[in-house]
Amino acid sequence: MKSFRKELWFNIKGRREFVNITRDVEEALAKSGVTEGLVLVNAMHITASVFINDDESGLHQDYDKWLERLAPHAPVSQYLHNRTGEDNGDAHLKRQIMGREVVVAITAGRLDFGPWEQIFYGEFDGGRRKRVLIKIIGE
Amino acid sequence: MKSFRKELWFNIKGRREFVNITRDVEEALAKSGVTEGLVLVNAMHITASVFINDDESGLHQDYDKWLERLAPHAPVSQYLHNRTGEDNGDAHLKRQIMGREVVVAITAGRLDFGPWEQIFYGEFDGGRRKRVLIKIIGE
Amino acid sequence: MKSFRKELWFNIKGRREFVNITRDVEEALAKSGVTEGLVLVNAMHITASVFINDDESGLHQDYDKWLERLAPHAPVSQYLHNRTGEDNGDAHLKRQIMGREVVVAITAGRLDFGPWEQIFYGEFDGGRRKRVLIKIIGE
Repeated sequence: MKSFRKELWFNIKGRREFVNITRDVEEALAKSGVTEGLVLVNAMHITASVFINDDESGLHQDYDKWLERLAPHAPVSQYLHNRTGEDNGDAHLKRQIMGREVVVAITAGRLDFGPWEQIFYGEFDGGRRKRVLIKIIGE
Repeated sequence: MKSFRKELWFNIKGRREFVNITRDVEEALAKSGVTEGLVLVNAMHITASVFINDDESGLHQDYDKWLERLAPHAPVSQYLHNRTGEDNGDAHLKRQIMGREVVVAITAGRLDFGPWEQIFYGEFDGGRRKRVLIKIIGE
Repeated sequence: MKSFRKELWFNIKGRREFVNITRDVEEALAKSGVTEGLVLVNAMHITASVFINDDESGLHQDYDKWLERLAPHAPVSQYLHNRTGEDNGDAHLKRQIMGREVVVAITAGRLDFGPWEQIFYGEFDGGRRKRVLIKIIGE
């Protein structure tokens, strides 16, 4: 069994943003030499997500508006978590909706994807350096 | 390490439906010959889900009503994504709640499940042919 | 390829609670002897979750309040599922928000975690014995 590990680093300027990382995962897969297996891609921080959906800017604005409706940022006093001095209580909730991780099949050396699947990093509490982990296992 | 791959195809007539695919995954597992490992089951389309829960029709109606409350289909003009000519903006949101994929342990040649666990395909934008991927790795 | 399996048992007195199980997963990993691979940790029951987030009591209260807002327990008559004689319709919905499972990378014999990642069992319908499955594969 082969294994391969790579970190991606981000420093998102604003509070929230979606970044397409499909190409980065493909590059890691090519370096790994794995042709049959699984790749795990996960946020290493608990106010961020990794998810798979469409690379369409209108949809990303829809996600942002929807997540703000389900778990609003303000007023920050509505979250007990913010008594720790943080203002990111909402980000911990948004991340649960969008998910921590994706697991993708590797077949014949490629990400085994449907026609529109793309992998995104979802930042919900930007302004600091954060990481995504890519872990590949297989043969 | 062994690996095995199978696609399941669907063509749901209505807009939304839940389909129990546990038996299909069990059949793929039997064909794979894997006795210890993991199986990934994922929607290959971004307006559909694969999830694990109970096979109870009342619950499925509860899910449908709840998802419509959290991310209503109409009016379709509420989603920027629908400016692309689609009317499935809501389906991209519903799918994030229910999830893209499940990973299930394989032990002694069987799905290592609790008493009520069943695997479902969740369609949120039917009327077209769509696929689920089953990928098995192990020994 | 090595594989390792362990069950964790819970009997939560109240209806809802979050339990940090990171240490249990680390102990299973040590016993497995796996140094490179993946660990799957999943609820074996469909009204419970396994998720990764922060071990901060304020945040856990925020999650509880938020999940009650998105999928209230009462009135129990609002869920068709409760016609089966159960009163846990809400728990099946809450579990979809928080997720069934996590997959964590194993690198150099350790859980490959970011600085704040901790694994939790999320109970949404306590008062009965329930299990979590830990399945480890790798080398």
